[in-house]
Amino acid sequence: MKLGSKYTHQYSFSQNDVNLFAQVTGDINPLHLNEEYAEKTIFKTRIMHGFLSASVFSKVFGTLFPGEGCIYLEQNLKFLQPMFCNTLYNAIFEVIEIKPKNNIAVVNTLIKDLKNITTIEGNAVIKF
Amino acid sequence: MKLGSKYTHQYSFSQNDVNLFAQVTGDINPLHLNEEYAEKTIFKTRIMHGFLSASVFSKVFGTLFPGEGCIYLEQNLKFLQPMFCNTLYNAIFEVIEIKPKNNIAVVNTLIKDLKNITTIEGNAVIKF
Repeated sequence: MKLGSKYTHQYSFSQNDVNLFAQVTGDINPLHLNEEYAEKTIFKTRIMHGFLSASVFSKVFGTLFPGEGCIYLEQNLKFLQPMFCNTLYNAIFEVIEIKPKNNIAVVNTLIKDLKNITTIEGNAVIKF
Repeated sequence: MKLGSKYTHQYSFSQNDVNLFAQVTGDINPLHLNEEYAEKTIFKTRIMHGFLSASVFSKVFGTLFPGEGCIYLEQNLKFLQPMFCNTLYNAIFEVIEIKPKNNIAVVNTLIKDLKNITTIEGNAVIKF
């Protein structure tokens, strides 16, 4: 983790992942689960839970960049666009500040679809 | 949702929930899964994923307060203390700002353990 370090991770979730996430977290809002219900909303189809979509930040920090030993201190999230299952997204990371005294990094965290539209944005603070 | 509205929801997760969350999200950091590994860290035992612990905010907004129809716009999270499975926590909500023109609420969101120690804090912005 150095100032300016970048990392990109491509991912997608299935409707089965969304259903399991709903089961584990108890977030059974029908907007995520029931297509007939979702068709009548402004989204016109089921959307993924924002927390599931954004969990890729936790996955990447905990397992890839920087990986094991990383401690998650803060995460800010703006849910800018609905996100859909069976759709590829890129999670994009850039270290924008390093506090070397205590190994803390501030990381800009974005999710973009393949048309380069940002769906989630925020910053994270991690100890590495 | 009115200025000053409050809501509290008590919850806990099991290690099985943590394992399922790891499976769905791909966040297989051993700190959450492997007791032998976790014993050698500063936490001395497995801790829950911050995103699983904080997913209660999404659950409550989507299903209880205000419930169906709520749109999640923003969530800020500070992970202040490690959180453990099979342990009761209170998720505490207070509406701190209302923008009536577009039905937007800013909600202070806290998680506290039963000793009243805050483990996660942040604010959410929702459309209701």
